[in-house]
Amino acid sequence: MSSAPAPGSAPAGLTLWDEEDFQGRRCRLLSDCANVCERGGLRKGQQFILEKGDYPRWNAWSGSGGHHSDQLLSFRPVLCGNHSDSCVTLFEGDNFQGCKFELSDDYPSLPSMGWASKDVGSIKVSSGAWVAYQYPGYRGYQYVLERDRHGGEFRTYSEFGTQAHTGQLQSIRRVQQ
Amino acid sequence: MSSAPAPGSAPAGLTLWDEEDFQGRRCRLLSDCANVCERGGLRKGQQFILEKGDYPRWNAWSGSGGHHSDQLLSFRPVLCGNHSDSCVTLFEGDNFQGCKFELSDDYPSLPSMGWASKDVGSIKVSSGAWVAYQYPGYRGYQYVLERDRHGGEFRTYSEFGTQAHTGQLQSIRRVQQ
Repeated sequence: MSSAPAPGSAPAGLTLWDEEDFQGRRCRLLSDCANVCERGGLRKGQQFILEKGDYPRWNAWSGSGGHHSDQLLSFRPVLCGNHSDSCVTLFEGDNFQGCKFELSDDYPSLPSMGWASKDVGSIKVSSGAWVAYQYPGYRGYQYVLERDRHGGEFRTYSEFGTQAHTGQLQSIRRVQQ
Repeated sequence: MSSAPAPGSAPAGLTLWDEEDFQGRRCRLLSDCANVCERGGLRKGQQFILEKGDYPRWNAWSGSGGHHSDQLLSFRPVLCGNHSDSCVTLFEGDNFQGCKFELSDDYPSLPSMGWASKDVGSIKVSSGAWVAYQYPGYRGYQYVLERDRHGGEFRTYSEFGTQAHTGQLQSIRRVQQ
């Protein structure tokens, strides 16, 4: 397609509206935003990955069935997503020990490609950015794994599996750009 | 990984349990099952893609936020999924007309790769099986597109976009096996 942009070339940008179908008040973000409402306090909330595109109502970004999340309070760009140059190594044990597997493609089912355990012990991202999911088919809790944050190293599940409090990972995919 | 099976070699199989965490009554399926309860009647329900793996409770398969779908009544295998040999062509217009784009990789965002429209007019699957989604990031209604069913041809959105009743497609991925 002649109109395809060079991957990774677009700067991060996100426009928010406070009503469905791009109606109501508008807010444009170009970098991290810790609290879009400028209200204090810490919340442990659910996390969503927003690829380039339109999200006309809450169910377009809310992927983990049953959580009606129409209140998004903080935002940040994913670093160094690169669909054509992404590499990650999964390890069976903590601290990059045990059986390992190097991936450079999306896998909707780790059990299908022979990963015997439900869990992953540690992860090293060599390039690009990845999203790992608790269940097959890109379902359940999701974890962003970026080369350019924390050196791409996750030594135990507590460094990536912070929402489910387990190392259960059954699908993984690259972030496009 | 030495234990990885050859892609596409495993026969279809699915085991159901009627309670969470693989408890309660068990039922093993090896082929299509129009109604697992053997009750009559037609329902237009939501559809889920189940890659190889464990689904310990309903939210592991239910990906379109807000629908608590713990009642699955019919099942069928996806034909000819092949992660390493999948090809699909998207067309802007009906009947394979207009601007087109041939894909052999997963795309979590069609807008990111330069597809200018929110919609897809028609689709031709040359090999493998694909899942196309209404929203970016593999979210929203999902449509299974198989080479070996209906010749892999979808001439209008009414032949694939049957749940949302639009041709809106913003992400697409291969079925692994």
